[in-house]
Amino acid sequence: MAPAQHRPLILTQGDPAGIGPEIALKAWLARDAQGLPPFAIATDSQFLGRIAARLGVTAPLAAVEPEEAAAAFSTALPVLVGCAPVDAEPGTPSPATAAGTIASIDRAVELVHAGRAAAVVTNPIAKSVLYEAGFRHPGHTEYLAALAARFWGGPEPRPVMMLWSETLAVVPVTIHIPLSAVPAALTTELIIETAQITARDLRERFGVRNPRLALSGLNPHAGENGALGIEDDAVVRPAVEALRAEGLDVRGPLPADTMFHARARAAYDVAICMYHDQALIPIKALAFDDGVNVTLGLPFVRTSPDHGTAFDIAGTGVARPDSLIAALRLAGRLTA
Amino acid sequence: MAPAQHRPLILTQGDPAGIGPEIALKAWLARDAQGLPPFAIATDSQFLGRIAARLGVTAPLAAVEPEEAAAAFSTALPVLVGCAPVDAEPGTPSPATAAGTIASIDRAVELVHAGRAAAVVTNPIAKSVLYEAGFRHPGHTEYLAALAARFWGGPEPRPVMMLWSETLAVVPVTIHIPLSAVPAALTTELIIETAQITARDLRERFGVRNPRLALSGLNPHAGENGALGIEDDAVVRPAVEALRAEGLDVRGPLPADTMFHARARAAYDVAICMYHDQALIPIKALAFDDGVNVTLGLPFVRTSPDHGTAFDIAGTGVARPDSLIAALRLAGRLTA
Repeated sequence: MAPAQHRPLILTQGDPAGIGPEIALKAWLARDAQGLPPFAIATDSQFLGRIAARLGVTAPLAAVEPEEAAAAFSTALPVLVGCAPVDAEPGTPSPATAAGTIASIDRAVELVHAGRAAAVVTNPIAKSVLYEAGFRHPGHTEYLAALAARFWGGPEPRPVMMLWSETLAVVPVTIHIPLSAVPAALTTELIIETAQITARDLRERFGVRNPRLALSGLNPHAGENGALGIEDDAVVRPAVEALRAEGLDVRGPLPADTMFHARARAAYDVAICMYHDQALIPIKALAFDDGVNVTLGLPFVRTSPDHGTAFDIAGTGVARPDSLIAALRLAGRLTA
Repeated sequence: MAPAQHRPLILTQGDPAGIGPEIALKAWLARDAQGLPPFAIATDSQFLGRIAARLGVTAPLAAVEPEEAAAAFSTALPVLVGCAPVDAEPGTPSPATAAGTIASIDRAVELVHAGRAAAVVTNPIAKSVLYEAGFRHPGHTEYLAALAARFWGGPEPRPVMMLWSETLAVVPVTIHIPLSAVPAALTTELIIETAQITARDLRERFGVRNPRLALSGLNPHAGENGALGIEDDAVVRPAVEALRAEGLDVRGPLPADTMFHARARAAYDVAICMYHDQALIPIKALAFDDGVNVTLGLPFVRTSPDHGTAFDIAGTGVARPDSLIAALRLAGRLTA
């Protein structure tokens, strides 16, 4: 295994028609100002060179093995050798690129498993594009869980999505389902498992000795003693009590609307929220540009910008690298 | 009718065991620093004097008719004459105080209707306390709508709750119902009516000539073309189209999580949200202390702090008057 200080982060290609290549270039240009750890991108260097030329970005590229990335990083953007050619037009997604997009993810995880890289930072993919090409996993994160089982063995781990920023960290218990499906999908067991994984990774990865978890209520005012819904007393509260019985520092169910102002946030390390918008509205309101998607529960560190492929602006040069920079920085911190 | 510049705002008593009396005293103390318009509180001056003494607040009280409030305001907190005696212990709500709490609201609305006061600013009430005393209205706002019909005649208007701050204004279409009841309660007609009332009051009261309305989606990612729920296409989008056909500047359904950061907020004057937490999470995250509850659709101006009675801290002196100050200032602006 390479010495830890030499192991780079591997940035995946993402959908090559999205803004991933552009923000990778911009993040590397900001490496000194942002104090970024060395990373290498797993894509076709000729393709990346064409994107740089098109955007008028002066970024020398260095074709490297992972072990050479750290040394090259100060003077060139390291690009892993051996990636298949990519032909993609910014803003025009194509299922023809799907195999390369997936191979880049596979390679990143394989290198971390082999001890040749420190962590995986993923550029955005477009599920619909991959589905057209036969991809059968529910999403990016679930695919990484499948790769964890493939490389590390054992059962597929349950991945937990945390949106993290310096301002606020949130974990949604249910995620990409219709709002009408949330009450039935929300179980005491699911809340407990999500909170346990979150607490463990906060301790082991983030170095928070006694993580403080704040659980939101599902209903307005956390149900107001049942007047505004039964789930807070029937589903969320038993989870809070079970987690406390394990010795975890857990509060809730809290009225979601009063959980996210500055004084309230000071009382916890992470907010465990019951559904997508309850978690993502506050973090995107407070930390839109520098929120990071970090997957907990995996045998390796994986971070990601918390935005999508943004096909509508790909190729125009206006994409902001802020969230990718935050993702790279957090991955570096979690593997330091 | 008194000249407009002499007509005070009437601040209702609210639940006398809550923080209402305390924040009224503190708001008056801050009148110069905050540039507050003259207001009179409709409560028992002896009771208010006891609260001031208990808190160690030096605030002279002036027993006034509404027409005398403006002249008295610079040197004493005007208290309306003729309010019934109040006996209440901070932090210990009692149904015995309910009649006085309601009479204070009635009086405020009556004075505005008579042209003797400019607007109503309400201190928080506790519905459960009023219910024990036989109050039969769903809430504070609905009671004000009933008073509007009583004094102005005609059918009861549909009140619309807007949470307003300098940073963000939001209107929830559905409010105090369980989350599981939201999808069925949300109709195209209800969204249209809510948006129409909002647009009209933004024009007529707030002086926004062409109000820009942003409608959130109900589901994550506004349903992602139906993959995450059908209501955004089936219920919200037809409302957007109908409102546009009326010539209103309306966008949506927008993914709720990306609606509330600074650049997104710059594109609209008010966010029309589908349910309680979707609206209240972002405004309380961004403007917790100075959010104002303003009721649209009434024949008079009514604002309110956007917090409750806070029985847990009543009488301890720690209550913050910020939201009441913002409510008084906004009521002044809307009636200037």
